[in-house]
Amino acid sequence: MGKSADRYFGLDTHRIIEKGFDPAHALEGESIFSLANEHMGVRGYFEEGGSLPSLRGSYLGGVYEAQPHRPDSDYLGFVHRTHYMVTAADALATRLAVGSETLDLGLCAFTDFVRVLDMRNGLLTRSFVWRTAAYGAIEVRFERLLAMEHPQWLVQRITLCALDQDVPVMLTFAVDGNIIHKTNGQCQWVDVSDSAGESRSVLALKTASTDITARYILQATCTGETRLLRSNRYVAQQHSFTLARGVALQAERAVSVVVLHPGDAPDPQGDAPAFADVLAGNTAHFQAYWAANDVEIGGDPENQQGVRYCLFQLHSTYRGLSPRDNIGAKGLTGEAYNGHAFWDTETYCLPFYLLSEPQAAKHLLLYRYHTLPQAMARARELDLQGACYPIATMDGTEACTLWQHSSLQMQPSTSVAYAIQTYAELTGDQAFLYREGAEMLVQIARYVLSRGGWNDQGFGFYGVMGPDEFHMMVSHDFYTNYLGKKTLHYAAKVIRDMGEQERAALTAKTGLNAAEPEAWALAAERMILLRRADGVFEQHEGYFSLPHIDVQAIPVGEFPLYDHWSYDRIYRTDMLKQPDVLMAMFLYPDDFTPEEKAVNYAFYEPRCIHESSLSPSVHAIIASEVGLRGAALDFFGFATRLDLDNYNRNTRDGLHLSSVAAAWMTIVRGFGGVRFEGGHLSLAPWLPEHWTHLRFSLRVRESLLRVQVEPQRVALHCEGAPLTLTLYGQTAMVGNTPLTMERPGL
Amino acid sequence: MGKSADRYFGLDTHRIIEKGFDPAHALEGESIFSLANEHMGVRGYFEEGGSLPSLRGSYLGGVYEAQPHRPDSDYLGFVHRTHYMVTAADALATRLAVGSETLDLGLCAFTDFVRVLDMRNGLLTRSFVWRTAAYGAIEVRFERLLAMEHPQWLVQRITLCALDQDVPVMLTFAVDGNIIHKTNGQCQWVDVSDSAGESRSVLALKTASTDITARYILQATCTGETRLLRSNRYVAQQHSFTLARGVALQAERAVSVVVLHPGDAPDPQGDAPAFADVLAGNTAHFQAYWAANDVEIGGDPENQQGVRYCLFQLHSTYRGLSPRDNIGAKGLTGEAYNGHAFWDTETYCLPFYLLSEPQAAKHLLLYRYHTLPQAMARARELDLQGACYPIATMDGTEACTLWQHSSLQMQPSTSVAYAIQTYAELTGDQAFLYREGAEMLVQIARYVLSRGGWNDQGFGFYGVMGPDEFHMMVSHDFYTNYLGKKTLHYAAKVIRDMGEQERAALTAKTGLNAAEPEAWALAAERMILLRRADGVFEQHEGYFSLPHIDVQAIPVGEFPLYDHWSYDRIYRTDMLKQPDVLMAMFLYPDDFTPEEKAVNYAFYEPRCIHESSLSPSVHAIIASEVGLRGAALDFFGFATRLDLDNYNRNTRDGLHLSSVAAAWMTIVRGFGGVRFEGGHLSLAPWLPEHWTHLRFSLRVRESLLRVQVEPQRVALHCEGAPLTLTLYGQTAMVGNTPLTMERPGL
Repeated sequence: MGKSADRYFGLDTHRIIEKGFDPAHALEGESIFSLANEHMGVRGYFEEGGSLPSLRGSYLGGVYEAQPHRPDSDYLGFVHRTHYMVTAADALATRLAVGSETLDLGLCAFTDFVRVLDMRNGLLTRSFVWRTAAYGAIEVRFERLLAMEHPQWLVQRITLCALDQDVPVMLTFAVDGNIIHKTNGQCQWVDVSDSAGESRSVLALKTASTDITARYILQATCTGETRLLRSNRYVAQQHSFTLARGVALQAERAVSVVVLHPGDAPDPQGDAPAFADVLAGNTAHFQAYWAANDVEIGGDPENQQGVRYCLFQLHSTYRGLSPRDNIGAKGLTGEAYNGHAFWDTETYCLPFYLLSEPQAAKHLLLYRYHTLPQAMARARELDLQGACYPIATMDGTEACTLWQHSSLQMQPSTSVAYAIQTYAELTGDQAFLYREGAEMLVQIARYVLSRGGWNDQGFGFYGVMGPDEFHMMVSHDFYTNYLGKKTLHYAAKVIRDMGEQERAALTAKTGLNAAEPEAWALAAERMILLRRADGVFEQHEGYFSLPHIDVQAIPVGEFPLYDHWSYDRIYRTDMLKQPDVLMAMFLYPDDFTPEEKAVNYAFYEPRCIHESSLSPSVHAIIASEVGLRGAALDFFGFATRLDLDNYNRNTRDGLHLSSVAAAWMTIVRGFGGVRFEGGHLSLAPWLPEHWTHLRFSLRVRESLLRVQVEPQRVALHCEGAPLTLTLYGQTAMVGNTPLTMERPGL
Repeated sequence: MGKSADRYFGLDTHRIIEKGFDPAHALEGESIFSLANEHMGVRGYFEEGGSLPSLRGSYLGGVYEAQPHRPDSDYLGFVHRTHYMVTAADALATRLAVGSETLDLGLCAFTDFVRVLDMRNGLLTRSFVWRTAAYGAIEVRFERLLAMEHPQWLVQRITLCALDQDVPVMLTFAVDGNIIHKTNGQCQWVDVSDSAGESRSVLALKTASTDITARYILQATCTGETRLLRSNRYVAQQHSFTLARGVALQAERAVSVVVLHPGDAPDPQGDAPAFADVLAGNTAHFQAYWAANDVEIGGDPENQQGVRYCLFQLHSTYRGLSPRDNIGAKGLTGEAYNGHAFWDTETYCLPFYLLSEPQAAKHLLLYRYHTLPQAMARARELDLQGACYPIATMDGTEACTLWQHSSLQMQPSTSVAYAIQTYAELTGDQAFLYREGAEMLVQIARYVLSRGGWNDQGFGFYGVMGPDEFHMMVSHDFYTNYLGKKTLHYAAKVIRDMGEQERAALTAKTGLNAAEPEAWALAAERMILLRRADGVFEQHEGYFSLPHIDVQAIPVGEFPLYDHWSYDRIYRTDMLKQPDVLMAMFLYPDDFTPEEKAVNYAFYEPRCIHESSLSPSVHAIIASEVGLRGAALDFFGFATRLDLDNYNRNTRDGLHLSSVAAAWMTIVRGFGGVRFEGGHLSLAPWLPEHWTHLRFSLRVRESLLRVQVEPQRVALHCEGAPLTLTLYGQTAMVGNTPLTMERPGL
């Protein structure tokens, strides 16, 4: 079951470097060199195309197409419409020809290939020397940026220098809307352009059923004679000129990409920025980002590069520009998972934003608020009350066509409640809590209550699938019951705590009656939690009597199990796919004693095969908490370099965005010992032996807390307002001057 | 939840009568007037076709077509090929025209409509007076028979008599292979005819993928000028003549229908029989059948007619002509359930055949033996050993595309083991038991053992769906564990009991090793059966803690639940679809004490909604056993007349063949108190109050036992060998002279 690195890219603390090009890594490189600015994302494909393996993927945040789904066997509550992120037009499409030769790195001779992604500004550079047949050597450099400050802009700069002789060049800048979505085998766009300007080439594309428009304006700057080209879903500017030997020529493009959902008003179109201006803007943007959010790891260049790459990609994918977007499991880097967001958003990604970019965290919650109507419609489909959030979605409707998941998993909804509570407690944003938050809580609590049932012992949930997807249709799943308890309790508490006026507004909106919070509180109080005398919580009723399987004895060749085992065989032993009891302890660390954590970790960890890439981080964090540092380090292992070193051998399909967030969490929560339950920050850092130091920052309300962990001591100071926190169990007020404490218990 | 009769057909003890025609009952009449002779079946549709609603269904036993299936989400063990019974050619197709008028009872005027099915010979007669526009009244009579003795023959007789004037008639006898399978919307036949004889019209049709040929030879006898017609999948003989006023004209056809599966050698073609000869043959056949198998109910004409209809249809559908056939849930009377046989065959139908036509019972077992390779292939698909019999099938492969059923239900396999044991014990057929029986038992036991698992408490099955299909993915389902226990125990016992030579042959065939029966015996001995202190067996682990639902409080409009409740909602209460614990007690009545039956009946009966039409009979029989005669009568209620009075309002789709068998069983096992465990017959009859007497017969080995139950006494006698049996707990040897006993405990 061990995973191994497949290291290809060069080590550097602030850059990702590819020196020389190996076509076997072509697709993987496309994923790794992906750029995004939340508004759009573009894989690191070669702009000139060619014959190499490629997933020519550009994506626009929140832009999707729907399709009807007819289930095999059609029962009530089954999903009849699904949707997926569309492949956008290629706004970087470039053709470079000299005489009769067209650049294609799959066919042409070239040397000195270097590709660099600089995480200090988001600049992707690719340079090489093209050894042409007729005109000798030509230095070629492609640079691209997605503008962080004005994210409608994508810019590209091409630098050419003929080394041997003058060269007749034809350089074509295109926007190509004919790119095929590989999984579906078709292009989803309809060309609805109605005009083309003189010096501007405008391409307007519309999705067929969701009626979303993407409007591209291409503006290229280049010497020579210019021709405008246009065909269906395609516009281009073609430039012919002679490249004089020894004189570097720079050409560039700026493409404006504006997305309009039905009902959106068009934005005013700004002037095209110069490449250098976007570069300067990005440099400033990332400077500020790193100043506040860098994680510095001394003595471990691999993890240093890895964690920065994680932070870079996470910020690029999502920073809360629009409450219409969520975070797809693959971000904007590939088709896998259809662009869908899962409950990973609330449980893995949200903590990062909460402690670094609270506005982004709020927008993630507003996304759930804006999709509350869809969640309420879904609950009705399931004969339930309130709001049932989808297990997989872009537009807020349920896109998962597997009823086992879409009908049985309650965690998407309870995760939203968890997120509301965590956000409200950490930010103190009562305006949100008592308006949007409370409205969601009412509907989620209604759903939760109606999905459960009473028996002689109390309240619980029957016929569910908890986070551990190797057990289905179970009763009293610990995670589900525990999260249900917390959700119902918190919803009742919020309504109790809120002012008369707020409650009146809420009642008007939701039809809330006074008996409801009482029913929630009662169900929460009487929630059934199965626990053995030795403190091990039973993952679900009957779990302890399941036949035991030694997961270490399963041959490596049988993983992933879904590909090698009969489907139902997976469900009848005590083997876990990913944590359930430990997952609840991960989300509510203060609710459980260290002894409980230790005994449950000892019981469940050996039974888990981590078939979810999110599983190791939870284990690393719980192991940290109970002092199992060796185990914590083992599980941390490849966390920061999951994609960089292609541990799962599927980086080619796109980046594992939720795992990226989990890596950050493992460092901050695991090694930093950071907790924030009830809005109160506490820390208990420790340092892996080979690390000389660990620095990270946390934003808590008006304060930016700087944490430096060294082998012998911990130093804290605060920018902004002073912060009261707990360090190794001792309460302290941290202000501008560093507070230093010896690390205890070494 | 009550069901009500929709009585349309006339009451008669030996016939089904329709006087006058109501188009609203057209489809229902087609089902009720279905004829079959196992080789083929034909719905009671009007041979002349026309504009009335009709399911023009003819079916050939064991003739099916396959189709690939692509599951929504494709996991290992999911079914990728399904199959269904094809709609055969219409061998009765008739066109009757006078001048320019063509007979169509949906459009033409007619009076004096009478349709009669005579259960004493299988003759279906339809007569009416056709009020033509141009030629006055014409008496028309259609008669049809499926030959019981030489089942390749279907015969039809048409009698015409012009009442008012001479009439120019064109009468066309056709075999029409263009009939559409309604569910699939297409005709599955390819015309492969290669010749047409002079006086014989031959139509050879082949299924596209399963390569089964049906060869029809049409031979019509009629006055007048004859023309042979032929087009794709169609042959006909057209006769033109003048029908003289007042002179009855008879015309008839015989159609030979021969089915060849790939590899079959063609049968020699016999001469066409006259209609009268087939009628005489059928009369003799049914006379013998009724003499041995009639059930006579005094004082209850409804149930008298009902039970005879059940016995008539059961014998027509299946009497063991070929071990290639099984009993479809709808017999040969409709497309519903795709012609598939279920485990109903072994649990509901087999007992009837065992006690009336043991050779048919043996052929049902040989059907499972011949499909053992398919069951072994299915087990391998599920990562299991041995043989996993399909939940739904015609050709022995699994045709059910719902993984919840095809992967989780073990009852098809354990039912085969139950059937082998019951057959062997009742018939003493050791040759079968130690050859085919033992081979199946070895493979079934291997499957059962590999599907289960051990824990500290013992052995059991995890992730199953028992007979009660409202609970899925459960552990220690009582029925599944109990049947598993019986299967493993019996398989080990058979191997222990058999001779050296037989064991050597079995070992050579199956690779059996000595440790296997030991492992089966141990698992059987240590099988986990969950039981409460008060004797109630827990239907599955956790069942007792499921939320309780008052099934009586569910509004009638919400049934069937699958059409009104979200799919997953059905699975999370203590409501049952059909019995599970009681089903085990039904199959193994001697294993449980009357007290156990009473307490389990009292607990489970109120929780069952009987969404399977087979559920009431099991309840009626257990209620009989524990002396709840009122309840037994309530559940017996519509059993014999389920289709005749259209209780389920879906008789139009075809007859409920398994329910037909269950009705017989309710009378014989319920009221007759008949048991046959261990091959020993025992009886304990009782009589519903309004019945003056009940007579039935049972064939046991060389004996035919005649039973007459009267209010005060029971009289038995035996034809053939004397029989030792138990009556009301007393052992008796019954021979040729009647043994009379007062009914105890009145």
